[in-house]
Amino acid sequence: MSNEVRSLNEECGVFGVWGHEDANQITYFGLHSLQHRGQEGAGIISNDEGKLIGYRGLGLLSDVFRKPEKIKKLTGNAAIGHVRYATAGSNGIDNIQPFLFDFYDAQFALAHNGNLTNATTLRNELEQDGAIFKSSSDSEVLMHLIRRSDADTLHEQVKEALNQVRGGFAYLLMTSDCMIAALDPNGFRPLSIGQMVNGAYVVASETCALDSVGATFVRDVNPGEIVTISNQGLSIDVYTTDTKMAICSMEYIYFARPDSDICGINVHSARKRMGRQLARETNIAADMVIGVPNSSLFAASGYAEESGIPYEMGLVKNQYVARTFIQPTQALREQGVRMKLSAVKSVVRGKKIILVDDSIVRGTTSKHIVRLLKAAGAAEVHLRIASPPLKYPCFYGIDIQKQSELIAAHKSVEEMRAIIGVDSLSFLSESGLIDSIGLNLDAPYSGLCMAYFNGDYPTPLYDYETEYLANLTAEK
Amino acid sequence: MSNEVRSLNEECGVFGVWGHEDANQITYFGLHSLQHRGQEGAGIISNDEGKLIGYRGLGLLSDVFRKPEKIKKLTGNAAIGHVRYATAGSNGIDNIQPFLFDFYDAQFALAHNGNLTNATTLRNELEQDGAIFKSSSDSEVLMHLIRRSDADTLHEQVKEALNQVRGGFAYLLMTSDCMIAALDPNGFRPLSIGQMVNGAYVVASETCALDSVGATFVRDVNPGEIVTISNQGLSIDVYTTDTKMAICSMEYIYFARPDSDICGINVHSARKRMGRQLARETNIAADMVIGVPNSSLFAASGYAEESGIPYEMGLVKNQYVARTFIQPTQALREQGVRMKLSAVKSVVRGKKIILVDDSIVRGTTSKHIVRLLKAAGAAEVHLRIASPPLKYPCFYGIDIQKQSELIAAHKSVEEMRAIIGVDSLSFLSESGLIDSIGLNLDAPYSGLCMAYFNGDYPTPLYDYETEYLANLTAEK
Amino acid sequence: MSNEVRSLNEECGVFGVWGHEDANQITYFGLHSLQHRGQEGAGIISNDEGKLIGYRGLGLLSDVFRKPEKIKKLTGNAAIGHVRYATAGSNGIDNIQPFLFDFYDAQFALAHNGNLTNATTLRNELEQDGAIFKSSSDSEVLMHLIRRSDADTLHEQVKEALNQVRGGFAYLLMTSDCMIAALDPNGFRPLSIGQMVNGAYVVASETCALDSVGATFVRDVNPGEIVTISNQGLSIDVYTTDTKMAICSMEYIYFARPDSDICGINVHSARKRMGRQLARETNIAADMVIGVPNSSLFAASGYAEESGIPYEMGLVKNQYVARTFIQPTQALREQGVRMKLSAVKSVVRGKKIILVDDSIVRGTTSKHIVRLLKAAGAAEVHLRIASPPLKYPCFYGIDIQKQSELIAAHKSVEEMRAIIGVDSLSFLSESGLIDSIGLNLDAPYSGLCMAYFNGDYPTPLYDYETEYLANLTAEK
Amino acid sequence: MSNEVRSLNEECGVFGVWGHEDANQITYFGLHSLQHRGQEGAGIISNDEGKLIGYRGLGLLSDVFRKPEKIKKLTGNAAIGHVRYATAGSNGIDNIQPFLFDFYDAQFALAHNGNLTNATTLRNELEQDGAIFKSSSDSEVLMHLIRRSDADTLHEQVKEALNQVRGGFAYLLMTSDCMIAALDPNGFRPLSIGQMVNGAYVVASETCALDSVGATFVRDVNPGEIVTISNQGLSIDVYTTDTKMAICSMEYIYFARPDSDICGINVHSARKRMGRQLARETNIAADMVIGVPNSSLFAASGYAEESGIPYEMGLVKNQYVARTFIQPTQALREQGVRMKLSAVKSVVRGKKIILVDDSIVRGTTSKHIVRLLKAAGAAEVHLRIASPPLKYPCFYGIDIQKQSELIAAHKSVEEMRAIIGVDSLSFLSESGLIDSIGLNLDAPYSGLCMAYFNGDYPTPLYDYETEYLANLTAEK
Repeated sequence: MSNEVRSLNEECGVFGVWGHEDANQITYFGLHSLQHRGQEGAGIISNDEGKLIGYRGLGLLSDVFRKPEKIKKLTGNAAIGHVRYATAGSNGIDNIQPFLFDFYDAQFALAHNGNLTNATTLRNELEQDGAIFKSSSDSEVLMHLIRRSDADTLHEQVKEALNQVRGGFAYLLMTSDCMIAALDPNGFRPLSIGQMVNGAYVVASETCALDSVGATFVRDVNPGEIVTISNQGLSIDVYTTDTKMAICSMEYIYFARPDSDICGINVHSARKRMGRQLARETNIAADMVIGVPNSSLFAASGYAEESGIPYEMGLVKNQYVARTFIQPTQALREQGVRMKLSAVKSVVRGKKIILVDDSIVRGTTSKHIVRLLKAAGAAEVHLRIASPPLKYPCFYGIDIQKQSELIAAHKSVEEMRAIIGVDSLSFLSESGLIDSIGLNLDAPYSGLCMAYFNGDYPTPLYDYETEYLANLTAEK
Repeated sequence: MSNEVRSLNEECGVFGVWGHEDANQITYFGLHSLQHRGQEGAGIISNDEGKLIGYRGLGLLSDVFRKPEKIKKLTGNAAIGHVRYATAGSNGIDNIQPFLFDFYDAQFALAHNGNLTNATTLRNELEQDGAIFKSSSDSEVLMHLIRRSDADTLHEQVKEALNQVRGGFAYLLMTSDCMIAALDPNGFRPLSIGQMVNGAYVVASETCALDSVGATFVRDVNPGEIVTISNQGLSIDVYTTDTKMAICSMEYIYFARPDSDICGINVHSARKRMGRQLARETNIAADMVIGVPNSSLFAASGYAEESGIPYEMGLVKNQYVARTFIQPTQALREQGVRMKLSAVKSVVRGKKIILVDDSIVRGTTSKHIVRLLKAAGAAEVHLRIASPPLKYPCFYGIDIQKQSELIAAHKSVEEMRAIIGVDSLSFLSESGLIDSIGLNLDAPYSGLCMAYFNGDYPTPLYDYETEYLANLTAEK
Repeated sequence: MSNEVRSLNEECGVFGVWGHEDANQITYFGLHSLQHRGQEGAGIISNDEGKLIGYRGLGLLSDVFRKPEKIKKLTGNAAIGHVRYATAGSNGIDNIQPFLFDFYDAQFALAHNGNLTNATTLRNELEQDGAIFKSSSDSEVLMHLIRRSDADTLHEQVKEALNQVRGGFAYLLMTSDCMIAALDPNGFRPLSIGQMVNGAYVVASETCALDSVGATFVRDVNPGEIVTISNQGLSIDVYTTDTKMAICSMEYIYFARPDSDICGINVHSARKRMGRQLARETNIAADMVIGVPNSSLFAASGYAEESGIPYEMGLVKNQYVARTFIQPTQALREQGVRMKLSAVKSVVRGKKIILVDDSIVRGTTSKHIVRLLKAAGAAEVHLRIASPPLKYPCFYGIDIQKQSELIAAHKSVEEMRAIIGVDSLSFLSESGLIDSIGLNLDAPYSGLCMAYFNGDYPTPLYDYETEYLANLTAEK
Repeated sequence: MSNEVRSLNEECGVFGVWGHEDANQITYFGLHSLQHRGQEGAGIISNDEGKLIGYRGLGLLSDVFRKPEKIKKLTGNAAIGHVRYATAGSNGIDNIQPFLFDFYDAQFALAHNGNLTNATTLRNELEQDGAIFKSSSDSEVLMHLIRRSDADTLHEQVKEALNQVRGGFAYLLMTSDCMIAALDPNGFRPLSIGQMVNGAYVVASETCALDSVGATFVRDVNPGEIVTISNQGLSIDVYTTDTKMAICSMEYIYFARPDSDICGINVHSARKRMGRQLARETNIAADMVIGVPNSSLFAASGYAEESGIPYEMGLVKNQYVARTFIQPTQALREQGVRMKLSAVKSVVRGKKIILVDDSIVRGTTSKHIVRLLKAAGAAEVHLRIASPPLKYPCFYGIDIQKQSELIAAHKSVEEMRAIIGVDSLSFLSESGLIDSIGLNLDAPYSGLCMAYFNGDYPTPLYDYETEYLANLTAEK
């Protein structure tokens, strides 16, 4: 799937550091390496001797903090930050995280990656009880639960609140005294801890962010854990023992950066193994293997190595595509005007091509790419997808909640092949995917959430149950 | 060589179209595919029934034309455009092309890719004769020569002027009646003609721009030719027959887009052959081949295929690096904070690596990348460069005129190896490069300019003679 | 007092319209005429068949709504808007009004002009009970009180909430069904109702806003009233009968636009009467009367007419002073470089001048202006102030809460005269001010709040009591 | 005439300083006080030990130099600057002055206030001789003439060039060695010399700019003079003795800042005398005198003083009108929505009003204002214009070259009265204007250019002769 038309949207990345005099810049650089997880807004809140100071804005991190003084004002030895992908209808500045809460007796910063499945229910209950929300984001529910808790200590209040929310969540909180990280009982979203040379602790959605600030990997946060980092060091507690590991398989397939390790598995290597396995399962004779740039290049490379078919650059992506770009009119597109992706005529002309992509969402991108290749003279195009057919939405933090948009939910492989216009179409098998990732935990699907492919959700769906499961049943 | 620290700067790209009602947009999309040839400024001048209308600005094309009305105002059936890389000291708006000249009796638009070697002499002579230049750009000299010519027709005036300028030039001019393309006698810079479905002619610095607007390749402009496109169609004349083909070899190695064909040779394929040849000339046993993203990935892929050593993604480039980005301080860099390029620890740790890059300019980027790999745990790094050592500056349109900055001009390969900190260092041979490109013309170096590598300039250097040749002699 | 260095800051203006298809634009133009009441931020919330839609931003109204689509999106037949002057420490976007509250069962828009004196107490109580505030603004307290009320109808809930807040407030609320205006029991801040040609009702902080949208004045909102405007028309209720009129005298002296009528008294005419009365009380022989532009020009004109001394333009204000202007360095200021205000040498040279200003806050501006006049050659400068000495802070919505900054609180008239450097200094008497305004209500000080001048606050000060009254007592 | 709809546009202001270490800032502050002379663009060129450095841009001075570093880069002890009003069709950045010319042997900076009447002829001749212009501005002609002169010294070359251009011009040039000021033989535009405390010389279009930088007035530049300022001090020469003083009367009536002295006459005082004289010539019994803000307030004040009728503020101008403001639709305007100017109902209702304005161009503004007053309840409105009817265009630097737009060129006073909708209309007499200004030189019209009113142009019109005089004759 090419980036420009991505239909799978990661909803966030979080980063925090405790104990470094350049906490603001560390967080900035850490978030920068998580920018692929959300491009609609970004924010940082720092902790200057107990006083929390924040700034946030719409757009890329580099847009939000275009003026260096915006960063400089975030003084102090600790900070947490967030990059956000805005879901439909909620793209205002009010929803950009981290949230900063000022109470007469305390301050809180809160950043969240994931999606709660009982947020609507909780929010309505809270509002009936007089609560006023400052955002339309589900993430804020946790703060209300904490403030309304009768528990004696903040630590107990947070644990009590965590036991009330459901779904996928990697939470990062900061108070005047400490930074708190917590992961949902299924560990749907990744969250890792690292340590810098000076001893400062770092928490991040992906290990690539640890690397980008020179931190050494310490350990992942485990499902059901609540990790507290303060001037007294790091302490780990659990808020629930009712856990069942089910890390999102799509992180490996598409979302995460290739240099990240998720649950100990390097993403790039997993993708190359998916490509190799795809070749073993689906190969045919051909002149060349081409990957869809940039996300599928290494699945394609793995495919090429396993099959012995040369790996060629048959598609070129314009690296200067900008947000504000003028788009060609329909009339010009029909005359062959294109902006983002070009097929290399002298490479593909007359050739039988194996085209490798990581996934198919709506099928429109694949169709467009195949047309480009055929228009450039390709004799045959055989599409190979390095994951199984994508049939079910995600409720744990990925923005594909409308099943009606998923082509594989409604069409057979042969129907898809005809729509996309390829000479053949094959997908990686579910077991092939599980083996390629190689997590091998003693858990269903080896510890992966495979619900995208088989509808087997590891948890009840709560607020989404009626609405979506009705659809699911109907469509299965 | 990674893009962010590129030290070789292409100075321009030109694009023109004659005979299409969406000439403004066609030119915009054509220029967009040439954006890699210059990012400091851009402009378009259209021709609306004989009236020339222009707009230009600093920055990327998408910045200059951020507001759609800027494009919409450029009405008419013909247009020429330019993307510019600003050379030092001349980065004001005055130098952004195309230039628009308004005379009481005519209008002219002028765009230039290349560098004149006798511009200073010509300019001084013209100023002594009362001329006033509107820019500090050499490109403007041609306009003054045309206007001062006593020849009877504009066509003869332009030919007379072209015979007075020296160096590398691909000129694109437009008057109320026609569009004129002209190439220097050595064809240092590429320039190709295409035709759209509706018959409109297109001229562009690279064929990728023809493809991007759906145009079919017609032919390249040849050295010494002057091509005139008007409502009467296309006509080709020569302003000189004293020509000797010497297309810039660096276009193949680094500058041009991989999907372009230059003199009939596909750039991507040439780069892959350079990688294969490099493996044949310099291979050693290793665990993996890694290319420097993005420009060297396919030389690396060719190397891997030829050597049978696996091709891995050991370096990841952050795709969100922005111009306005805050840079890490030296102190943070020393703690391992990095922004643009990361080494993938779990891929490279403990491995013997062959690192492929396309060229070495100052050596600083290579040194930085090697450090990244070693810090990530690489056991050995063997650097292989897919071109010969770069020892001599270019005077025909590439911005590396200071020989003192070229590490290979002053250091032996062993000295460079030690400075860069690799376990071994090898370069592609000159003959290996010539064979890999495979131009095979009946001309010196098969029709390539190889002066970068051997100092054998195809022409006298005129204004640069004294200054630079003194250096060259001293340093050889 | 010149505008650039104003030290008295009005904290807000509100505007609302119900029943006009161009509600968004009506509100925009209405707010535009209230821009003098707050320049730090602005916002508008519209009501499109029960759905509230809002936009707000930092800066002038014209900056916030620079892009016309921002206004266009605010569809519907009703809207309320707000212009805000940010008080220290709370100048973020979060505090820009109107606030939009989204509940599972309702939406509310809220705009507030004034200052609550028991907000801190109420807020702490609410937070102790689990409430989370979205802003640091006192204005938000009312919404929490409404939502937590047990009353049966919204109307009763709002009345209950209004009875809990203290201080100065002109509130404008909007729900899906109606627009609600309410004024504090002392009517500290002005609030007027008008009607447009098509029958639409308009509510605004000043009558100039009614005029600017072509509305006819209907009546003022009276202290203790709650006015509801809906599709059923306008209905007036009272939430308290314990009222005592005390409109802010500073609205007449300085804040309000001269074309506004406040409590039936035209502001321009009141200012001219203050000038006339000032002449009666303090006149001496002189060559000319000069007013400090722009706010004191008509007090000066009244003075000149009463005294028969010519009225001259001896001070010129640069009309292009911008927010982002570079300021002269101290060294340049000492050489006479000035930007905002100039004295006209050929007018003032050698002359005995009566300089009329509306008030003195810190005295620094007066000192600066006198120096300008003397440097331009004025023989004598006699300063006449068209209000009594300003000695006490305001707690009802004007930003001069630090008494320590008020020069008249600490210095005698003679001391002030010496500091400012004038030949004589006189103030309008309290009774002269009351007579000039001419409100003549059966209430203390004829219905004016004169606390600025005599410390006689019409209400208890609640949260400010301890802190400020201690100061007051000490300093009296 | 209110500022917003001004139809008379001054075309420029110039400022220069020689011999001050803060030359860049001095020029910035000087230009700031000349901003009323041109708002479409601004630029500054400094001289750092012989090296000229420039920056210019579109918009107000504060927009062009929004970033302080733009000013800081303009280092050196001398600088010249320019504010420009763009005439139709030539509003690009290329025409923003000062122009900076870089020759192989010299640099020049050039700023111009005025309009040449033989520029087209000169430009065509120069282009026929091979010249290329960098702008469409007439101002550039002088530079070409200087560079093509055969005279021996720069001083003689400039004098030779000045003798070739015709029309109105105040030129300010700077070379590496000196600053040169020159005025046309009729002195159409004002130009004054001042001196700062440290001895630095300053040249400016108006004396208000001398005051704004703390400079003392030295003398005006006289018609036909060329003034050279260098490190050797100030020297004055004449390039022609064929001079006849004819300073633009409109500078006194409308353009210049009231605190400027032009030819020794203070502008504010002249305006007040025009008002007094207008009362003597045209007064009738009335309730009040109202001036159109801001330019006519002091003519109105003079009228009031002379007639003994009270001077009131019946019109209020919104001080926050911004360039980017959304305009009311026609439908809203018809409902009374207005943005810029309001009539004060409680002042004007039922009153007989004398409305004083400085001039009538198209009459549309007057018509609008009268409607405002009548809609606000004015019983009668008697319009009094403090200058004679404006019937003829200006060719010397003011942008009203289309006579067809001047209402007084086509309509009788009674026709105008009816169109504007006033109860009576009177103008100041020509002799009344001349007496009020009081220049009293031994020259036609006492040294004033009165062509606006009587068509008596002090010079031949050259390039404009055929085109415009034909019209004039026809229309007289």
